[in-house]
Amino acid sequence: MSRPALVFIGFMGAGKTAALVAAREAGLETTEVDDLMERALEMPIKEAFEHHGEEAFRQREAEIVGSLLEGADGGAIALGGGSVLSERVREALDRHTVVWLRVDAEEAWRRIAHSDRPLATSADDVARLMEAREPLYRQLADVVLLSRERDQTARALPSAMALADLPQGAKMLWASSASGEYPVFVGPGLLDADCWPMTRRRFCVTDAAVGPLYAARAEPLEARVEVEPGESAKSMAEAERVLRELANAGMTREDLLIALGGGVVGDLAGFCAHTYQRGVPIVQVPTSLVAQVDSAYGGKTGVDLPEGKNYVGAYHLPEAVIADTSTLVSLPREELVAGFVEVVKTGLLAGGDLWEQVRSIESLDPSHLDEIVFACAGYKCEVVAADERDTGLRAALNLGHTVGHAIEAASGYKRYRHGEAVGLGLLSALRLSEAPDLHDEVEAILSRHGLPVVLASEVDVDEVLSALQRDKKRTAEGVGFVLLSEPGEPRVGQILDPAKVRTAVEELRK
Amino acid sequence: MSRPALVFIGFMGAGKTAALVAAREAGLETTEVDDLMERALEMPIKEAFEHHGEEAFRQREAEIVGSLLEGADGGAIALGGGSVLSERVREALDRHTVVWLRVDAEEAWRRIAHSDRPLATSADDVARLMEAREPLYRQLADVVLLSRERDQTARALPSAMALADLPQGAKMLWASSASGEYPVFVGPGLLDADCWPMTRRRFCVTDAAVGPLYAARAEPLEARVEVEPGESAKSMAEAERVLRELANAGMTREDLLIALGGGVVGDLAGFCAHTYQRGVPIVQVPTSLVAQVDSAYGGKTGVDLPEGKNYVGAYHLPEAVIADTSTLVSLPREELVAGFVEVVKTGLLAGGDLWEQVRSIESLDPSHLDEIVFACAGYKCEVVAADERDTGLRAALNLGHTVGHAIEAASGYKRYRHGEAVGLGLLSALRLSEAPDLHDEVEAILSRHGLPVVLASEVDVDEVLSALQRDKKRTAEGVGFVLLSEPGEPRVGQILDPAKVRTAVEELRK
Repeated sequence: MSRPALVFIGFMGAGKTAALVAAREAGLETTEVDDLMERALEMPIKEAFEHHGEEAFRQREAEIVGSLLEGADGGAIALGGGSVLSERVREALDRHTVVWLRVDAEEAWRRIAHSDRPLATSADDVARLMEAREPLYRQLADVVLLSRERDQTARALPSAMALADLPQGAKMLWASSASGEYPVFVGPGLLDADCWPMTRRRFCVTDAAVGPLYAARAEPLEARVEVEPGESAKSMAEAERVLRELANAGMTREDLLIALGGGVVGDLAGFCAHTYQRGVPIVQVPTSLVAQVDSAYGGKTGVDLPEGKNYVGAYHLPEAVIADTSTLVSLPREELVAGFVEVVKTGLLAGGDLWEQVRSIESLDPSHLDEIVFACAGYKCEVVAADERDTGLRAALNLGHTVGHAIEAASGYKRYRHGEAVGLGLLSALRLSEAPDLHDEVEAILSRHGLPVVLASEVDVDEVLSALQRDKKRTAEGVGFVLLSEPGEPRVGQILDPAKVRTAVEELRK
Repeated sequence: MSRPALVFIGFMGAGKTAALVAAREAGLETTEVDDLMERALEMPIKEAFEHHGEEAFRQREAEIVGSLLEGADGGAIALGGGSVLSERVREALDRHTVVWLRVDAEEAWRRIAHSDRPLATSADDVARLMEAREPLYRQLADVVLLSRERDQTARALPSAMALADLPQGAKMLWASSASGEYPVFVGPGLLDADCWPMTRRRFCVTDAAVGPLYAARAEPLEARVEVEPGESAKSMAEAERVLRELANAGMTREDLLIALGGGVVGDLAGFCAHTYQRGVPIVQVPTSLVAQVDSAYGGKTGVDLPEGKNYVGAYHLPEAVIADTSTLVSLPREELVAGFVEVVKTGLLAGGDLWEQVRSIESLDPSHLDEIVFACAGYKCEVVAADERDTGLRAALNLGHTVGHAIEAASGYKRYRHGEAVGLGLLSALRLSEAPDLHDEVEAILSRHGLPVVLASEVDVDEVLSALQRDKKRTAEGVGFVLLSEPGEPRVGQILDPAKVRTAVEELRK
């Protein structure tokens, strides 16, 4: 049987030719479809377009590219921007590793404005075409590279190529930000495959619910440190206990820590990895929905103080994130549902396609979340790439979290799961955004999935407001809220009238 | 009275002309002595040298530069490499802020090899000249810039200019490494001056011995958190207490933390600054000898675990280090003496001048340590600049610390002060280095200052050896020792026969 090829897809100007250079340097045989077309048609693409018309061109392209892909045995191929419009091509892509080089419309136009592209003669053309093609690219992609530099593509190639040996349905995303970059693998059954980024002795931090289920699949482990499930494990005392157990197990800076569990384990283990002997590498293996769609990415780690959530922490990028979506099946229903709040949040922030997907989910089936987990991970990594240290854009991810964290703090981190509190926070944020329709729709979504939409009477509103005042994003001007009037259009750093905030929290009581 | 000028001195190729460009961009009027000389002599420097001979040239230079400096009112002046050979020039420099642009002989030769310098026609010339002039530059310098880039010089200028308003005797050093750069101020009475690098609300961490003496001089303070003096404060529990107190005092990311105290306070407060809300800026205000010569620089922060010293920590560069040497007077004698061990270590590592200074100290006078503190700080910052994250060179700073830390751990951090344990560690390291004369000289120096040279009988050798095995620098190959056969020539990462190590520790008992 012939081996799968690495096939680069993406918009004009996405860097497919440069990716092919990287593949060639990595020792792969490479083919560029545009070259092939020009040779077959015996004229430049632009001329062929004019001479034959788009339809005839596409037909010829489908034949040439289809047969190329059907016969390909390994190597790397760069498709034309429109090659994926053909169904034959899309079907032929199925057995290959499809790498989508993502670029936004503005950047694409910047790169191609002065070149000779028949279909893109203005920024508007580009935006319109991009909108039409993105869903196709997204649907076909096994690998998403958000990166824009050729060197980065080169560094991502080995992980992209590794995908061929991973279970069916596995996808890969290359996350990059100011202080580093790493592969994100998402898919069912990854824990049984080998996607560890480095050959080192492994030490594992997990919790007492997840460890017994999955730790055996991360073997060989030098040691496994378990914490109690739940937010209470995110304490300085637990961090110390974990650090001491790692020390007693003889972990050194040349070893690897694995965080196997939900957001709590990821945050706690990440903090321990950052501080253990001033830093050891970590691989995040998120097993909860909230961790797989949000918290495992971007390097924020930390523990809570009684004074506030995540008051102690650091940035520590993982060496890799391995999100085995089949672990979601064992997640208690309430955890799955609470995690879904982060999916709703991501949909609201991203807007477009992703929001449409999120709002259309009638009931949560943990075995059918691969696509949405991968999409949410991609959105999160994109935001982090633009603002790793949370000085601007990344603050948008805090949508619903400002009030959410305050609710958690005011209720001693006991009454609500993190996601449940954020759900209430989302409602406050939409109320403060004066977006009543969106508020009501989100309220309906939360209710439909069994999430709380009313603040429990034992949680004191004054305490929520006082916890808000200790928000660690507070500046001299006050607490900056994330507001959102339309899906996809968050506004960060909004300083609000305290009376208005009180009303929005009080209304959670109704 | 005329204002002091900023006067750049340093070897050929040190970047004096570039520094002058930076000064001009900062709005200062600038004068280049080489230009002045060429105009006065009506020929290029090289020609003047040949035509008049060096002696006559130097005489003319002394007149021109002397009178320039005597009359200078503000502005910036770049001297010629040899201008400081004149006593008149050196005396005239006294009222100015003298900025030494440091460059090593190899780098200097690389830069001037293809230029037309009359005195430097070979790498050997350069090395010889450099050796002769360095002591002069060092003695004259108020400011040392280790940096090599013009942009860095530009960024250091405001701090260099600030020196004119600081107390007599204050010196400044510009520390830079991969992740940042900051000014280091050293001198008597700095706490009464204003050298805070940023106008922000200030929160102070100090200890119960230092706080009452000096915290008032760091006012206004929003809050002052005190820990017990001594190594026992470097614990996760104390870190948590400090973090909680800062949270309760309302500290935000827009505030500034001040570490006022010795090495323990610096390490603990640095760790808290790094982790509080994922990072707030810190100013290190070291008040002990060990902190002023070593631990306040380079960003290593952390706390201990029962399993090992500094087992939990992070890198967090300060915004500035303010080392007020007049605080050394209030230091308990034993603390001063223990801190002197780091001075001995630095002398051994640096060799040359610094080692000569260190070995010639008959008795420690805390009011006469300014020069040696500044020199040690300079050495430390130079090593950190080359290797911030401790992957090679920086390991040299660990001389004596491998066994020293193990002795501290084996004795529960109680029997010895850090410096005392490191003193014993130095003796082991020199024994392991098979440098008997140097071992005996260091033993004599330690004894002379009242430091222990024999391991107390209650400290178990087996426990020291077992603590050594948990050294956090241990790799798969074993524990890497720093050895040193000659002052100035450390060798890092030496893996040794365990039996030899045991003997070296046992010999501390004799």
